[in-house]
Amino acid sequence: MKNSNKLKIFNDPVYGFISIPDEFIFDLIEHKSFQRLRRISQTGLTQYVYPGATHSRYLHALGCLHLMQKAVSTLRQKNVQISPEEERALYIAILLHDVGHGPFSHALESTIVEGVHHEDISLRIMQRLNEEYKGELDLAIQVFQKKYHRKFLGQLIASQLDIDRLDYLKRDSFFTGVTEGNIGSDRIISMMNVREDELVIDVKGIYSVEKYLISRMFMYWQVYLHKTAFGVELYLIQALKRAKELYKMGERLPTTPALEYFLERDFNEKFSSDDIDVFLELDDNDVMFSIKQWQNHSDLILRTLAISVVQRRLPKAEIRNNPISKDELEEKRQAANQYFGEGAADYFVHQSELKIIPYDHEKYPILLMDKDGSCKDIADSEKQILTRPLFEPTIKYHFCYWNSDKLERIL
Amino acid sequence: MKNSNKLKIFNDPVYGFISIPDEFIFDLIEHKSFQRLRRISQTGLTQYVYPGATHSRYLHALGCLHLMQKAVSTLRQKNVQISPEEERALYIAILLHDVGHGPFSHALESTIVEGVHHEDISLRIMQRLNEEYKGELDLAIQVFQKKYHRKFLGQLIASQLDIDRLDYLKRDSFFTGVTEGNIGSDRIISMMNVREDELVIDVKGIYSVEKYLISRMFMYWQVYLHKTAFGVELYLIQALKRAKELYKMGERLPTTPALEYFLERDFNEKFSSDDIDVFLELDDNDVMFSIKQWQNHSDLILRTLAISVVQRRLPKAEIRNNPISKDELEEKRQAANQYFGEGAADYFVHQSELKIIPYDHEKYPILLMDKDGSCKDIADSEKQILTRPLFEPTIKYHFCYWNSDKLERIL
Amino acid sequence: MKNSNKLKIFNDPVYGFISIPDEFIFDLIEHKSFQRLRRISQTGLTQYVYPGATHSRYLHALGCLHLMQKAVSTLRQKNVQISPEEERALYIAILLHDVGHGPFSHALESTIVEGVHHEDISLRIMQRLNEEYKGELDLAIQVFQKKYHRKFLGQLIASQLDIDRLDYLKRDSFFTGVTEGNIGSDRIISMMNVREDELVIDVKGIYSVEKYLISRMFMYWQVYLHKTAFGVELYLIQALKRAKELYKMGERLPTTPALEYFLERDFNEKFSSDDIDVFLELDDNDVMFSIKQWQNHSDLILRTLAISVVQRRLPKAEIRNNPISKDELEEKRQAANQYFGEGAADYFVHQSELKIIPYDHEKYPILLMDKDGSCKDIADSEKQILTRPLFEPTIKYHFCYWNSDKLERIL
Amino acid sequence: MKNSNKLKIFNDPVYGFISIPDEFIFDLIEHKSFQRLRRISQTGLTQYVYPGATHSRYLHALGCLHLMQKAVSTLRQKNVQISPEEERALYIAILLHDVGHGPFSHALESTIVEGVHHEDISLRIMQRLNEEYKGELDLAIQVFQKKYHRKFLGQLIASQLDIDRLDYLKRDSFFTGVTEGNIGSDRIISMMNVREDELVIDVKGIYSVEKYLISRMFMYWQVYLHKTAFGVELYLIQALKRAKELYKMGERLPTTPALEYFLERDFNEKFSSDDIDVFLELDDNDVMFSIKQWQNHSDLILRTLAISVVQRRLPKAEIRNNPISKDELEEKRQAANQYFGEGAADYFVHQSELKIIPYDHEKYPILLMDKDGSCKDIADSEKQILTRPLFEPTIKYHFCYWNSDKLERIL
Repeated sequence: MKNSNKLKIFNDPVYGFISIPDEFIFDLIEHKSFQRLRRISQTGLTQYVYPGATHSRYLHALGCLHLMQKAVSTLRQKNVQISPEEERALYIAILLHDVGHGPFSHALESTIVEGVHHEDISLRIMQRLNEEYKGELDLAIQVFQKKYHRKFLGQLIASQLDIDRLDYLKRDSFFTGVTEGNIGSDRIISMMNVREDELVIDVKGIYSVEKYLISRMFMYWQVYLHKTAFGVELYLIQALKRAKELYKMGERLPTTPALEYFLERDFNEKFSSDDIDVFLELDDNDVMFSIKQWQNHSDLILRTLAISVVQRRLPKAEIRNNPISKDELEEKRQAANQYFGEGAADYFVHQSELKIIPYDHEKYPILLMDKDGSCKDIADSEKQILTRPLFEPTIKYHFCYWNSDKLERIL
Repeated sequence: MKNSNKLKIFNDPVYGFISIPDEFIFDLIEHKSFQRLRRISQTGLTQYVYPGATHSRYLHALGCLHLMQKAVSTLRQKNVQISPEEERALYIAILLHDVGHGPFSHALESTIVEGVHHEDISLRIMQRLNEEYKGELDLAIQVFQKKYHRKFLGQLIASQLDIDRLDYLKRDSFFTGVTEGNIGSDRIISMMNVREDELVIDVKGIYSVEKYLISRMFMYWQVYLHKTAFGVELYLIQALKRAKELYKMGERLPTTPALEYFLERDFNEKFSSDDIDVFLELDDNDVMFSIKQWQNHSDLILRTLAISVVQRRLPKAEIRNNPISKDELEEKRQAANQYFGEGAADYFVHQSELKIIPYDHEKYPILLMDKDGSCKDIADSEKQILTRPLFEPTIKYHFCYWNSDKLERIL
Repeated sequence: MKNSNKLKIFNDPVYGFISIPDEFIFDLIEHKSFQRLRRISQTGLTQYVYPGATHSRYLHALGCLHLMQKAVSTLRQKNVQISPEEERALYIAILLHDVGHGPFSHALESTIVEGVHHEDISLRIMQRLNEEYKGELDLAIQVFQKKYHRKFLGQLIASQLDIDRLDYLKRDSFFTGVTEGNIGSDRIISMMNVREDELVIDVKGIYSVEKYLISRMFMYWQVYLHKTAFGVELYLIQALKRAKELYKMGERLPTTPALEYFLERDFNEKFSSDDIDVFLELDDNDVMFSIKQWQNHSDLILRTLAISVVQRRLPKAEIRNNPISKDELEEKRQAANQYFGEGAADYFVHQSELKIIPYDHEKYPILLMDKDGSCKDIADSEKQILTRPLFEPTIKYHFCYWNSDKLERIL
Repeated sequence: MKNSNKLKIFNDPVYGFISIPDEFIFDLIEHKSFQRLRRISQTGLTQYVYPGATHSRYLHALGCLHLMQKAVSTLRQKNVQISPEEERALYIAILLHDVGHGPFSHALESTIVEGVHHEDISLRIMQRLNEEYKGELDLAIQVFQKKYHRKFLGQLIASQLDIDRLDYLKRDSFFTGVTEGNIGSDRIISMMNVREDELVIDVKGIYSVEKYLISRMFMYWQVYLHKTAFGVELYLIQALKRAKELYKMGERLPTTPALEYFLERDFNEKFSSDDIDVFLELDDNDVMFSIKQWQNHSDLILRTLAISVVQRRLPKAEIRNNPISKDELEEKRQAANQYFGEGAADYFVHQSELKIIPYDHEKYPILLMDKDGSCKDIADSEKQILTRPLFEPTIKYHFCYWNSDKLERIL
């Protein structure tokens, strides 16, 4: 599978060296569709709170490729048969699993390309690459779609302990500096095994898995659902939503051609091939450039949201254990409407329920395999010390509203 | 100097926590002029070669603030007197030392704002902030300009072992994953001392300093002067240069208002106040957005350079021990002219002399202080093992030219 | 407090540099009673399971001194008043808190110096040093005994989040390589605060504390109560117990003078001054040397235990969720008696209940301080995500018995 | 080669997990001869200066086994053929390469087993194990003796860039906390290749190799030849030498049976089989126990040396760039003789020439392999930046003598 005179190695601050397993994979990396991921930040506006988190989806995808090579090598050492074709399919599928991400993904998915999931776009782009490369991605696409008969291949791409999570939790912990979220990806991979084509974990790895479940919790509450980062993302979403509405009202805004294409259209169903073309032009620069321009726009709502996002004049954001009372909500809504005009509250006041199940053992059980080959759910192991308390979901409430003090300063 | 109920702490992947020493410093950080640094990458296009190097100048400035607090605390423990005013001046000066950096600094300084140094712009912005804050930055500006009578304050801002270098070498090593460049910033700072108002190093720190000098060498040859990163930056410079020429010929290009302002003007002398205003609007997004648009421009030279930079169709780049021969240079120039038309060679073929003096002991001597208080140049120490070989400059030659194979693919 | 020409710095793999705050502390470190800790392993026979865990109590004590300096500096930055005398008392007390540890402490405390706690011996040695140094340790002893009126000083020495634990958990995690146990000592210290002379934690530190509580659990189950390490320690205890009994029967064994002194005596009450003298001669070498000799002794029980410990012919050890049944226990006891003669079962078959309360909020509440200065138990915080599940004790059962297969090989 | 139900994994603070490749290797690790290495410190008395350096030769050997597995896997990925027999031979040879080390090796080799090298003893022990295991070590022994026809196997065991050095430099740097010595073992191994059965390095690894050469220098001057550590080792050697002389004069000292055996005998030639038997009983405990006893011996010289070593009353030690003058040497010798009696100077006053060649390119050239398969010495590479200055040997002089102030305190 190797061609030694084009062996390529990337430096990665997380794993050291990342080597590229063969030339075809290298060509995929060099492809324009994949290079676009360089310009898409992995964690969006989270860098407003954790300034180190400027890493790109490109690097995450390379990191996944690295971990997948470790996984293949570990499983083969344990006498799990993986053919060269299956191996390559795993590499392609994990490399491209996020290729359909747009800039500030959640923001886009909620507004600009409403109703179109990034997984679907990833699949579409893979299919397009498959045409270009004359069927070389056939098996990868089967694995990505979980249609391949050996289940563990798909589980390595997407499951409770998939390679995607093993990279992004470790990587996001690394770049944010939130050490509580640092998981032992290497250790978990070294404990992977396969029984009857299902992915399982050797029993010795139990504490690495428990630590992983807990670290994931820390990452959710400290990073992904951080009150301020979550709040500023909400405001970005509102800015794009407002922009789209202004377009519907016949206005045009200073923006980039690619973003304008999406502001002008609705996508209730799947993308057309043309849509994919334009989508592949879009990256974080389009959004940031546009938002910067909108700071001077005449529409008060758009202007306020843009200034809030660009200049980090952040909304007031809280996380609470109980739902926000109707009265409190109404009070903030009225204040917003009063200040910005009727209807503004929908842009400026938000309540969101945040629900995390640390270990969803029904949907995604983690199986531990004993030395004798028998398997049981991690929660039923004699050794478990922290898993059982992790069955219960944690529910909190994010509340984010217009803070007149802050915003007055900026208008 | 503290106000405990607004103490702010940032997470940093390099140092863990960075705390903000007082409210005024915090206000400076929140200032729009400083927040702009979030959108300026510390190492520009180096991320094309080291994909982890997406960190911003904002984070570097915070890192400097952190190290400066360590330095102040270390020196005070060694009974060096530093007044609260001097302390704050150090923090302000190091925080703002790079505030005048534009996007892809070297590129800009060579073209867009030709002849205007980022240090000068930093100073201008500091002066403007000083007006806004009614003289609070007076002492910081003196220190920054090396006009303050206690020399070591200025040396902490800029010298062979200044806080700026101690942060950026460590940080760039960290984010690139080039571990050969990892310096012991903490160790060097813990060895700092002051004698007769000059910054010196306790003799016990000799090996940390030697390692620093060597790591710096590694960073230069592996990162800052990496043949490919250096090459793509050259092409970015040429693209901006070409754009500016097209403006002179009366054309207008798709770009952002702020960048257009600079493409339309020449700056042979200092900036006007208006120039500063627009400069503060400019960040990496303006350049990347524009280059992306220029991929479709009718001018063959601009289009080629833009595609080369955006799609990573990189020029052929080499580093050699000897100057490139006239014949070879001429051959590549002719090829470029033939392909793109007369005059194109100036854009596509470049030779650069790269000269590094590992330890420039004449310009910036490093003084070691013995237990008895006597000082000598590190190179004269009985303990030195690697310093003397580091007097000699290393000279190499970068050669970068149009690679017809690669470019044909993209046009 | 500093005398710059005798400033001493130690290298530490965990924290980098450890500096010694003043000359008197340095003299204590150089004292023979403290140097003895170099020859006492921090985690005893745990290195049988985790071969990196060869670190000494000496290093742990230095590590504590380092963290205490961080704590003092943090608290002063938050305007907590700590006088130079209190500061020095903290350093002395934490440096010497373990000075009374014998070799393989738990083993010794269960047998050789039965009924005498290492804390009491530490106190006795401190008092002796206090005489030698003419009262210099007065305040340190008060703090160590929790008799000082400002409660937080004593809490820094011994409490749920004391400096002792913050060092040993981090250090033992580091040297064992059990990364699940790696706590953020620095982060926790940077979040320490004092309210009404009580140690509290700033609310921002909540996740560092939760991670600490969980990491501590991991360290208990993976390291301190590891079935094999716990088992081999039980056998070491039995070997010493057997040796003591042989002495009572009038035998003499090959051993060292210091250890013999303790094998010949019973200590139901406090140590005499002579006892302390001999105790200070004792270190790991005495025990290991003796056990090595006993491998050839004629007493079958002693010989078997010694071989088991020295040659790592370990007993069969298990950890279970339920108590061992009477039948099973009886079966193993009979097998032991049959093989080694009546009475042997007491040496070779052991059941131990292991009970861990992750967060004992009644005995040692952790108080979080909000920005407004109000405090509440961490378990009552709106932000807590993992603390509540940590109230419940975990109980497991260690079972360890003679494994005829293994032992036959060695006799 | 694997037997999945006995797969064993060790935790290692340096590499994380170390897995044992097969059952036979595991049996060797469990063997009494190998377990002895647990009780032999890797860096002897260096822990007097670097208190973290308590790691054992056992852990170093396991670390080598780990790196060797990496090397085999890397080379196979580059299509270097290595048969399962060769693979196992590499593992056995590297695991056992140091099995003949005695306690405080250099001390012993200079005195107790004068003239017998630890490599020879390692070989003898391997041969004995080979008998026990009926020829299973045949190939390993050939490789260890560099008699195998494929040269690179022997080079992986012993050469400029062998696995032994790659582990001990990294490990000693780790445990001492001397970060200047931290080499990128993983990176160097990932750059290993084989051409015509010779070990070479891919050209991309040049900076990792240059960093390695420099880090090795730092380790020599900061650790292995540290003036104090080197001095205390000299005094330990003298103590053993003095003990041996007292035995020759007919005295017997308190010591262990195994050490006494060696104090009573001279070994000018190879060991007998009996000698090996007793040698395998010997570890650090024997030496430390004996030295501790000798602190009270009537012989003034022995007593002084013992106290100096045990209580860390260290001799005065210096490192200079020039040889010590005859006059100065004579002065110190006279002082020693005067104080301790004629002849004492040989024990208490020492000058040693220390000579390090950073890169001995004649004896052990490092070959870089270009992409086209051609090889050249690293020093001739266009890319080298630091190698050439590393040809020159560095020579310094260690001077160590009786410091009357210090010793008077203790006698």
